[in-house]
Amino acid sequence: MTETLNSRIFDELNSMVLIDPHTHINPHSAASETLADILGYHYYTELAHSAGMPREQIEAPNLSPKERVEVLAKGLGVIDNTVQLSWLLEAAKELFGVELERVDESNWETLYDAAQAKFDSPSWEDEVLKLSKLEAVFLTNDFDDPLEGFDTQRYIPCLRTDDLVFHLAKESVRERLAMATDVELTGLAALESALTKLFDHFTSHGARACAISLPPSFAPTPVSDAVAEAALSTLLQQSEDSDADSRLVVSNWVFWKLAEHCRRTKLPFDLMIGVNRSVYPAGVFQGQDLYDSRVSLIQYRELFCAFPDVTFPISVLASVTNQELVSYAWIFPNVVCNGHWWYSNTPSFITRDLHARLEAVPRNKTIGYYSDMYKLEFALPKFAMFKRCLSDVLAGHFVQSMGWSETRAIELGKQVLRGNVETVFKV
Amino acid sequence: MTETLNSRIFDELNSMVLIDPHTHINPHSAASETLADILGYHYYTELAHSAGMPREQIEAPNLSPKERVEVLAKGLGVIDNTVQLSWLLEAAKELFGVELERVDESNWETLYDAAQAKFDSPSWEDEVLKLSKLEAVFLTNDFDDPLEGFDTQRYIPCLRTDDLVFHLAKESVRERLAMATDVELTGLAALESALTKLFDHFTSHGARACAISLPPSFAPTPVSDAVAEAALSTLLQQSEDSDADSRLVVSNWVFWKLAEHCRRTKLPFDLMIGVNRSVYPAGVFQGQDLYDSRVSLIQYRELFCAFPDVTFPISVLASVTNQELVSYAWIFPNVVCNGHWWYSNTPSFITRDLHARLEAVPRNKTIGYYSDMYKLEFALPKFAMFKRCLSDVLAGHFVQSMGWSETRAIELGKQVLRGNVETVFKV
Amino acid sequence: MTETLNSRIFDELNSMVLIDPHTHINPHSAASETLADILGYHYYTELAHSAGMPREQIEAPNLSPKERVEVLAKGLGVIDNTVQLSWLLEAAKELFGVELERVDESNWETLYDAAQAKFDSPSWEDEVLKLSKLEAVFLTNDFDDPLEGFDTQRYIPCLRTDDLVFHLAKESVRERLAMATDVELTGLAALESALTKLFDHFTSHGARACAISLPPSFAPTPVSDAVAEAALSTLLQQSEDSDADSRLVVSNWVFWKLAEHCRRTKLPFDLMIGVNRSVYPAGVFQGQDLYDSRVSLIQYRELFCAFPDVTFPISVLASVTNQELVSYAWIFPNVVCNGHWWYSNTPSFITRDLHARLEAVPRNKTIGYYSDMYKLEFALPKFAMFKRCLSDVLAGHFVQSMGWSETRAIELGKQVLRGNVETVFKV
Repeated sequence: MTETLNSRIFDELNSMVLIDPHTHINPHSAASETLADILGYHYYTELAHSAGMPREQIEAPNLSPKERVEVLAKGLGVIDNTVQLSWLLEAAKELFGVELERVDESNWETLYDAAQAKFDSPSWEDEVLKLSKLEAVFLTNDFDDPLEGFDTQRYIPCLRTDDLVFHLAKESVRERLAMATDVELTGLAALESALTKLFDHFTSHGARACAISLPPSFAPTPVSDAVAEAALSTLLQQSEDSDADSRLVVSNWVFWKLAEHCRRTKLPFDLMIGVNRSVYPAGVFQGQDLYDSRVSLIQYRELFCAFPDVTFPISVLASVTNQELVSYAWIFPNVVCNGHWWYSNTPSFITRDLHARLEAVPRNKTIGYYSDMYKLEFALPKFAMFKRCLSDVLAGHFVQSMGWSETRAIELGKQVLRGNVETVFKV
Repeated sequence: MTETLNSRIFDELNSMVLIDPHTHINPHSAASETLADILGYHYYTELAHSAGMPREQIEAPNLSPKERVEVLAKGLGVIDNTVQLSWLLEAAKELFGVELERVDESNWETLYDAAQAKFDSPSWEDEVLKLSKLEAVFLTNDFDDPLEGFDTQRYIPCLRTDDLVFHLAKESVRERLAMATDVELTGLAALESALTKLFDHFTSHGARACAISLPPSFAPTPVSDAVAEAALSTLLQQSEDSDADSRLVVSNWVFWKLAEHCRRTKLPFDLMIGVNRSVYPAGVFQGQDLYDSRVSLIQYRELFCAFPDVTFPISVLASVTNQELVSYAWIFPNVVCNGHWWYSNTPSFITRDLHARLEAVPRNKTIGYYSDMYKLEFALPKFAMFKRCLSDVLAGHFVQSMGWSETRAIELGKQVLRGNVETVFKV
Repeated sequence: MTETLNSRIFDELNSMVLIDPHTHINPHSAASETLADILGYHYYTELAHSAGMPREQIEAPNLSPKERVEVLAKGLGVIDNTVQLSWLLEAAKELFGVELERVDESNWETLYDAAQAKFDSPSWEDEVLKLSKLEAVFLTNDFDDPLEGFDTQRYIPCLRTDDLVFHLAKESVRERLAMATDVELTGLAALESALTKLFDHFTSHGARACAISLPPSFAPTPVSDAVAEAALSTLLQQSEDSDADSRLVVSNWVFWKLAEHCRRTKLPFDLMIGVNRSVYPAGVFQGQDLYDSRVSLIQYRELFCAFPDVTFPISVLASVTNQELVSYAWIFPNVVCNGHWWYSNTPSFITRDLHARLEAVPRNKTIGYYSDMYKLEFALPKFAMFKRCLSDVLAGHFVQSMGWSETRAIELGKQVLRGNVETVFKV
């Protein structure tokens, strides 16, 4: 009976058309072209690597897509317990019509060919969006993205700012900024003017968010223009030889300035808090980042107080920070819970974290989920995983424990899945 | 069948008369006078504020109670998913006889009037205690409370010491201390004599606990009288201009002295660990405090070792500290687990934290719950929430997983709900 | 039906013969001789102490085993809710044939005598291993253990290295090292040669692991031989008066050297991360250690990167570190999740931590459980506790939520319980 209740709720939620508020989709090549695009997702390469397959084999150069899939398929056996692999199997079933319990040497080619038949259809991109019940997906655009040549109603721009905040010491980043804005970076005033141009460029192309990922050590604080000017001058002269203090000053100045531009342009500022980059430099591509879970939202106290008019949708990398997120969203009007990120995007953490959010945070302040996908084929299985967790919380906490009607629980689920995406990001 | 088991256990636990070992009740005005007293509880004002209602509206001056309720009712719609709001609905049903699914513009007045009819009865205070099955409630008394004019058997005094430990730099606090004790604060000896008088005053009026809330950074340590004398002298001269070091020295000296007085007077010393005050100064009244969950009970190691004869009932603000609390209570004879505090007082955290306590800490060392209420009407729904969580743990872990009889599980529940309150606080 | 599924899975898992990959068994006296050996386990003495029994009573000298049990039995009443006590009751039932709900003054002697009848059988050691379905158990050997006089196929040596890394400042430790290796510790070269001899001694006697427990503050890093030589010289001259810096340098040098020897000898290096020793020095024997849960695996980043060929089976003391362990094992090929240690070895933490591991870490990288026992009689109840948690995760997550067949879930359980012990430790 319980399972029937959960299934009924799932089916209702699953009938909705959604907007995915954070992905890494390339709008010029949104769908996969071969199964290698799917198996090349870092979740599979890094897990196969972790389970024993050498990086040299995984990243062997000059392989055809089919050869690469053949190689990777050998590494999937020992990861077949993972929810990450289940995304592939659910995509195979729902999108390619191939039902498998495992992918291995015996069956990868069948899957490859079935998928290829789909990919080869000129309407595949539309089809996969339709099958996935997705109306629009947010992008993650480099600051110098021209934002041209795609439908910004379907693929909604989002200004990603990690480079601006953390990598201005790199000459290449400064050159990209000068090129994109036509502003020569001679000093702080020029930098300010470049940032203004970026925000205007993005908002005029329909951007609906500014976003950044942040290391656990970061604690934003305003710095005076005088101090920032001196530090920027160091960066301009010494580039990557600049001292850590000067870099940090510039990071803080730029970060604070971004928040000011978010206020000016009314863009929500997505903060993805807690990642350490390149912890394992010998890892596969995109499989090198980890974290130190000793981070606190108290580090953002000054920011939240200084920008009451900016909405901060917040993702935390480690589940241990989730209770702070719940509490800060319960107190600060401008703090919103945003999805389940990366290492916390597995069912046991999702269910636990979501339960804590839904029982204590106002219902207009939780954005249920984003897929974080690189290729469209992952929206369906990732959202399905989330919807199962959401159904469990709605059934267990709201219907069974709090005595809500099924209808009311489903309404809450719908607000969290779609309604809040619309209101927070104004889409 | 499972639900029947849980319900049967709940019903048994719910038949008990309890003592509430920590509240903020004003014994001279214990019950609500209007529904505004209930909707004015910071949980509702801060959640309505967080969900979008301006502080100016929530705290508008010169409103009648009925006008204030009308205003606040508009902010309750988007928080109707929260367990905090469910306390109000459960109180409405069980105490006022009004059964609602939501409170909003359409029905607040019906609720207001129904509640008022109850409040207007001269026996309401007795009635609400009886309906709530409460025999006595602990208070939170300022150190200069005369403790007169109320029944200390029903309203048990508790010496709250935050001001003494953390705010002696304020002239107003020192003046209150001088006034309360008739001791002029000329130096350390005078301060010691004032503290002695306070403890004697409280214990002679039936106090059963000393209590304090502590910031995450606090790590108590003894300081010599000579060092403390110099620091106190700074505070006496410079008041709130005193340097942080001098303040910390005085905090440590006073804190340690409190523990000594607890030993002398055999009072348990309630430690409520982990709150940062005024993190969000623009928040509503009592809705400004948050925390940094990076705190450890190792900070209290020296204290626990130095005072083996003092019982420390400990509340932790963040659930992430709960495992440390379990482990420290498992090892230290003088460490007792105490209730589920504030941001950890929602069902998912209560159930998880309670399960960990009951499976590993001796059963005479867990105080199940306190309501932390400001008005008597909140005891019933808050304790009911806890008893549901307790029933779930007793049914799931003890009966189903460990094979206990229902009777035995209920006995454990009763000890945790009431028995340990009696033995720890000697009531 | 759910319970039937869980029970069926449990029964299948419970039919397997296992290898216990970490214990403190003394191979010359592996089984208990009297019930005092069992009640003397620190879990019972520390919990009885925590619940109120004075240390002087628990550790009274000159008691006969029977007198000691009589004393301790009085302290078990208030800990009868704990899972730790349930181990004793399950051992009583399954090994001694005595079924009790509690142990107290009324029945301890019956239990004592029944157990004694078993212990007195000359074949008891074989019997208890057979009843516990154990084929082999790993030991925890001091570095100067001669490793002689026992069957190293049944009792597999493991080199425990805490003394070498953290206590070389003690003259007694250096003397033991000189004695064991016949190397006079004149300097770094001598120390290196001694370490080489230790590893050769252990591997030639069938050792299958090197192990160490580590305080939360430790963050291993390589140090140059020159720096280490100077620091070692300080230790040799000043012993326990040596400054903290010199000690830390030597700790780091030795630790890194151990990892190098693990690489040379292909031994996995068990890291047990997070314990603070003697937090409560007035506690009973082995009941004085606690922890600071603010620790991160980022502290081991350099180590994991420097030794890709060494396998690190990792145990974390606090459940809050479990998500980091999951994430690091998901990314680093040489990081393996290892059992549920000490304060995290209770059902609520096991179930939660195991669920997170099994849903996201390659299935060849989780070692399910080790008993950590001092006497053979504890393997059965501790493994049974784990197998119940494992069955719950397999049934709930894999069969019910992921749609796996029962057979496939059981296969995963078996790999985690036994298969991975074989592959990781090469037994």
